[in-house]
Amino acid sequence: MANPTAAMLVIGDEILSGRTHDSNTHHLAGLLTAHGFDLREARVVADDKAAIIAAVQALSAAYTHVFTSGGIGPTHDDITADAIAGAFGARIDIRDDARAILMAYFEARGTEPTPARMRMARIPDGAALIDNPISAAPGFSLGNVHVCAGIPKIFQAMVTSILARLDGGTPLLSQTFRVAKPEGDIAAPLGALADAFPELSIGSYPFHQDGVFGANIVVRGSDGASVSAAMVELGKLFPESTA
Amino acid sequence: MANPTAAMLVIGDEILSGRTHDSNTHHLAGLLTAHGFDLREARVVADDKAAIIAAVQALSAAYTHVFTSGGIGPTHDDITADAIAGAFGARIDIRDDARAILMAYFEARGTEPTPARMRMARIPDGAALIDNPISAAPGFSLGNVHVCAGIPKIFQAMVTSILARLDGGTPLLSQTFRVAKPEGDIAAPLGALADAFPELSIGSYPFHQDGVFGANIVVRGSDGASVSAAMVELGKLFPESTA
Repeated sequence: MANPTAAMLVIGDEILSGRTHDSNTHHLAGLLTAHGFDLREARVVADDKAAIIAAVQALSAAYTHVFTSGGIGPTHDDITADAIAGAFGARIDIRDDARAILMAYFEARGTEPTPARMRMARIPDGAALIDNPISAAPGFSLGNVHVCAGIPKIFQAMVTSILARLDGGTPLLSQTFRVAKPEGDIAAPLGALADAFPELSIGSYPFHQDGVFGANIVVRGSDGASVSAAMVELGKLFPESTA
Repeated sequence: MANPTAAMLVIGDEILSGRTHDSNTHHLAGLLTAHGFDLREARVVADDKAAIIAAVQALSAAYTHVFTSGGIGPTHDDITADAIAGAFGARIDIRDDARAILMAYFEARGTEPTPARMRMARIPDGAALIDNPISAAPGFSLGNVHVCAGIPKIFQAMVTSILARLDGGTPLLSQTFRVAKPEGDIAAPLGALADAFPELSIGSYPFHQDGVFGANIVVRGSDGASVSAAMVELGKLFPESTA
């Protein structure tokens, strides 16, 4: 059976302006591969309600799971929760369970529960909360969309707890064979190898290092014997290279 | 007049599997902001012809310019040029101008012009070539889509030469004000400030550093006087903070 599919949606002007480098997609990609989810697409959109709604609707219809990062804080530019509710036509307001989590956290720290802070308890009807072990304000899952914070440490904690309750597929195995030859020299035999192993994904990732053009050949698949057989063939095709 | 809009499309399984961290989007984002283009969206799709065509058609219809990275090398998984041609219904074959560039480069180096290598001369009818000063194989612009290599050094060179011939808009100015207070404390006055300066984009980017919760307030706009006025107001609102 094919693995469940997934998409990532990064929300935030700061990524698109070049101010901040998104690291959450890369982190999620590695985790999903290890858990047997097939990450098919990633998107970055601005802090714009219509843009978020359009992306959420397109991705949630096309893939098994959608993960989002960013836009769930207390400030005026944090509009993700309302946009997700809008995408699903769900009602959204301050919810008792989220309020209780925030109040306990604020009381323990003597923090004032300002109206801005309590916006972080706005959760769509029908959503399941996602634990935030770092700063309490929860994420949530609504339908197949998992809404996480953008701060990398919090994003990582939330994704870990989501993946613990989802059914993944067969982890994708991956092996890399490094060839110190330009891609133009290896393309023909590599194409024939890809044809001979249709159950595998064989990718060629060129590099240019210390004046040498070469390529990392990455063999991916869920069947270990098949991956190993392809690696053996690579060793025969390019005997002077090192795996 | 509003600045021209742009989108980025990253093509490559290696990004979605978590093997490679995409750095091209971040590089492009900074350059576009400096040149007065409004980067509205970024997407990553797999080495899958249907996925590339769907993304190219959606983005090229929605934005003034689309930049792509990846998938224009000589190996079997390099399918970007054919997909772009497919998206525009353009004919594609080895083109004389691209062939001449590659042949000159190969002859100077004694490299054999294998059929795989000559695939890099496949350019859609009507496309303008983009110079590759590093390894010769050209990118191309077809309609409003600019097709660049994925190797960061080559991507950067190509984007620089594209931007030199495009009409940009007013560069977006940006100033940052650092507040050593949690977002919940500053959200209300910050929202009022954003309302008072509707011509600016005022974003709040929380951080958690050495046990302190704070936020970087980023003020963006094309009018310098307006950006400065907002920074002065921030200084009055949060006098104990450092800009």
